[in-house]
Parts: sequence; C-alpha cells; structure tokens
Amino acid sequence: MGPIIEPVMRLINQFSRLPGVGPKTAQRLALFVIGMSEDEVKSFAEDLVGAKEKAVFCPVCGNLMNRDDSCCSICADPSRDASLICVVSDIKDVLAIEKTREYKGVYHVLHGVISPMDGVGPDDIRIAALIDRLAKGNVSEVILATNPDVQGTATAAYIAKTIRPLGVKITRIAHGVPIGADLEYTDEVTLVRALEGRTEY
Amino acid sequence: MGPIIEPVMRLINQFSRLPGVGPKTAQRLALFVIGMSEDEVKSFAEDLVGAKEKAVFCPVCGNLMNRDDSCCSICADPSRDASLICVVSDIKDVLAIEKTREYKGVYHVLHGVISPMDGVGPDDIRIAALIDRLAKGNVSEVILATNPDVQGTATAAYIAKTIRPLGVKITRIAHGVPIGADLEYTDEVTLVRALEGRTEY
Repeated sequence: MGPIIEPVMRLINQFSRLPGVGPKTAQRLALFVIGMSEDEVKSFAEDLVGAKEKAVFCPVCGNLMNRDDSCCSICADPSRDASLICVVSDIKDVLAIEKTREYKGVYHVLHGVISPMDGVGPDDIRIAALIDRLAKGNVSEVILATNPDVQGTATAAYIAKTIRPLGVKITRIAHGVPIGADLEYTDEVTLVRALEGRTEY
Repeated sequence: MGPIIEPVMRLINQFSRLPGVGPKTAQRLALFVIGMSEDEVKSFAEDLVGAKEKAVFCPVCGNLMNRDDSCCSICADPSRDASLICVVSDIKDVLAIEKTREYKGVYHVLHGVISPMDGVGPDDIRIAALIDRLAKGNVSEVILATNPDVQGTATAAYIAKTIRPLGVKITRIAHGVPIGADLEYTDEVTLVRALEGRTEY
C-alpha cells in the first residue's frame, strides 16, 4: 500500500473496476476526487446512487427508462413506427443510431451477443422477448444491427434463423467503406463486403 | 438529451468532469454503473465520500494523510531521513518515487508548479511552507524533483534561487536517457542533457 492511505486505496480500487480504467488512471481519478470540494464529491456520490436507483430497462425494448414509467420514451412516442424494429446488442448502439436523427422505428436491445467462449448462449440475451414482440403481430420488418464482428454476425445469423418462421421481413445493416474513409487504408474484409454489397448507380 | 433519461445524464456529466474522460467514455462508464448491482453502486458512492472525508494533506509535507493523524506515514516514520527533502509537484510523484523503495528521505509536495499562463504564481504553491521547514534547521539537502518540462524547470530554478540564502545543499534530479531506451529514438534535448550530465566510468 505504501504511502496511500486506506480510504484512498478503496476509492482507487473502485475506479479500477470500471471498464478501460487501469491502475494508473484509477489512481489519477482518485487523487482528482480528493482535490474536489466536499459538496462536489457528495453530489457525485448522489448522482451515482440516483442513476442506479432511477434507471431500469424498458420491459418492451430493453432501453433505459425511468423506474416510474411503464415504457421508455422511444416506445411511448406515437410518432415512431412501431412496426419497424432495430435489433442492437447494447444501449450504446441505441444512442449512436438516435444521434443520426434519421431512424424513425423502434428498438430491441439484446443486452449482449451470443458468445459461447464467454458462456453466453441465446437464452442469456433478450431473444425470447423479441420473439414475443413479433408473435403479437404488427411488425413488418426487423433490422439486425448487431456489430459486424464474429459474435455480432453469429448473433444476427441465429436470430434470423429463429424468427424466419414468423414470416416477418428480416434485414441486416449494410457493411462497406465508411464515409470519408480512404480505400487505400480500408481493410480487405470491409472492401470485399463493399464490393459484394454494391448498388446500381 | 435524446433517449438518455435525466438521472443517467447527470451521472454522465459527473464522469465527464474527471480528467481524461471525454463524453463517450463518460457515457460508457455511466452505462456500466447502471449494470452494476445496487450494493456495488452504494459501496462506490460511500468510498467516494469516505476518501474525500478522511484524506487531508499532511501539514508538514503536503502528502496524503488520515484526517485523524497529525502527519503522514512518511513524516511519522523514524527510519526516514528527515534531513533530506525531495521537492515534487504532485502526490502522484511521491507515489512514483516510493515505488522504487530506494529513497529514504522525506518529501515536500508543492501541489502545483509555477505557471504564469495559468495564473499560478510562487505564492499559489507550497514554497513558503518549504522555506519554513528549512528555517527550522536540521535539513542538509533539498532535491528538486519537479518534472523536466518548462514549468517544472522554471519552478525548480525559482525555488533554488529563493532558498539559496538559507545555505542548504540544493540538487536537481538527473536528466538523461531512460534505462532500456534506444539512443536512436531518444529526443535531442534529452541526448544533450545526457552528454552534459555524463559521469566518469
């Protein structure tokens, strides 16, 4: 432990449990907190507990919602097209798509991807809840928007296979060269997908 | 604000005030906290407040100490050489030097460096407290261990000039090629300092 007093050590340990925070960063963050005013630290602590207390997952789509509400703001919005469901692995992905302000459908957050190596099977993510939503009818299209990595692709394939019998249109987001990127620096797999997915000009 | 509920937005704002945490990282950290158990979040909040409540600065050297103690563990340690004072700008630097387990003197933490551009003058860092320590006598050497950047070098020069009349030996940490580094990839300024600071073999 050396010259670090125990209460500060505890805070360093708390910070180092956060994703992407190594021991050095955790130490820097803890020392920064010591330098904050007592009121600032109390308000930080209150907002930590407050966010955890008030944020729950929407029973329909799995997105974040206030504990007192019956569903999230997107599912509750009558201007959104509830017949179009975009399936994503994480809440982060909802935020990324919402930032485009272009998508007018609703979401289904899986809260993970199928990953046998990590012990995550189809029953561990919200696939059954998706099937329940589709079984109620009124859905015309499911967009599979999991990441184009190994697990995301496998999860999309599994979901497509599973919901195919329900007769709803199933689509996958396009993969290709990102806008503004350089062909020269684009990896080969992406280039192959961009060529395969070419559209008529 | 979009689809992020207000209590989560507040937590994102709290995280984004921390050093080195951008809006994207703050969002990731906040969503991670939502995924933690309620007990884990409460313990995190308690450790935040606990560290701030219990950690104060040692009145002698400026290092961290428990609020209930009269000085820090290093100043209180009779096996440390109190006649040798290593002057550093931050508590982080104390931790870095302590990790070597080689230094047996005590410290003086300035809590900053002189930086006119940022409005930090000599009176804003703990230079007067250093002079008080030296005036009490019993100090044989002051090692100036501020960083070898513009502000750290200027701060070391200012302190050296200020304490020179007190007649205590003043030294500066060595600058040179880091152990394990490649001469080929060492910047010129460091190479010049390494040549200037050469010692007999």
